[in-house]
Amino acid sequence: MDERRLKQQLTFLTEADKMKTVLRRTLLADGSRPENDAEHSWHFALMAMVLYEYAYSPEVDLFRVLKMALLHDMVEIYAGDTFAYDEAANEDKEARERAAADRLFSLLPADQGGEYRALWEEFDAMQTPDSIYAAAIDRFQPLINNYLTRGHTWKLGDVKKSKVYKRMAMVKEGMPELWAVVEYMINNAIEQGFLKE
Amino acid sequence: MDERRLKQQLTFLTEADKMKTVLRRTLLADGSRPENDAEHSWHFALMAMVLYEYAYSPEVDLFRVLKMALLHDMVEIYAGDTFAYDEAANEDKEARERAAADRLFSLLPADQGGEYRALWEEFDAMQTPDSIYAAAIDRFQPLINNYLTRGHTWKLGDVKKSKVYKRMAMVKEGMPELWAVVEYMINNAIEQGFLKE
Repeated sequence: MDERRLKQQLTFLTEADKMKTVLRRTLLADGSRPENDAEHSWHFALMAMVLYEYAYSPEVDLFRVLKMALLHDMVEIYAGDTFAYDEAANEDKEARERAAADRLFSLLPADQGGEYRALWEEFDAMQTPDSIYAAAIDRFQPLINNYLTRGHTWKLGDVKKSKVYKRMAMVKEGMPELWAVVEYMINNAIEQGFLKE
Repeated sequence: MDERRLKQQLTFLTEADKMKTVLRRTLLADGSRPENDAEHSWHFALMAMVLYEYAYSPEVDLFRVLKMALLHDMVEIYAGDTFAYDEAANEDKEARERAAADRLFSLLPADQGGEYRALWEEFDAMQTPDSIYAAAIDRFQPLINNYLTRGHTWKLGDVKKSKVYKRMAMVKEGMPELWAVVEYMINNAIEQGFLKE
């Protein structure tokens, strides 16, 4: 056994614990506190599994999507969570996350770090069947919690319907059959007064 | 599209949010607070992926192990977390968890609920290559956090070395190459005085 290799892997897995302290803007469904990245990543992976039959293409490989789900936010250990509706913060998001990826994936042995980084980059670019479905789930999961907490992040971001539609466009692409659910939640939120027309 | 089916799936996924409020005895690696089931499940899945090369058998199917990781503690939404070193609570654990499984998996369409319940039962029985490897990871993940927090759960359970060895036997079986790491942590914990001989 290669001891150095194992040590690198255990260092990465210990550093991973910090995902439990990276807070998102989304609340838990019961509204009690902000969700963290580890919880979101678990919920994302579970959702990708349960809703897989609605993936837009038969080419979507759920095994690869699950790996993406587990890894997709780990750069935030160093780069922090960037609020989807904060335009200024999103301007330098790419540069911050690339620097974080350099640091994070280099903790691992080169072959494994390279494989995971490629998965993360594929997810981030949203150009392949796996990453398009994964991105749809990544948007649908917080939408549900946001709807259940009466638009908590929409209020934080002072967001109008048009921005939510733009943000949710990946759901239409990656899970077209679920678009009706998104429209229902948006319209209902407007009717109930927690999303601006 | 079958609307009733989708509604069942979304109900299950919303109920899943409660995993974020089921607290374990293990602390985060920084000692700041108890870990919850959603965080543990994510860390378990990530660890299964990173350490897969140490699985005891080439028959271990990582895709199935990841599904087990995502589902394995969901019955605790209704049954609660049972402390590994609480012998009284472990006596009725099986009955409590079976009743919880009846309730949880019946939220889903029958085909999907049946598939997930079978995966959970397979995990729980620890008799197949996938579930033996999964059980090894399920024990190794809290061992690391416990070591990093100077034996927090060992102190809570007033646990001696022999009990930790018994609890960790699945690591020896599912990831034999990592047994030396387990022994190192146990011996070091005794030397440092946070585990009883």
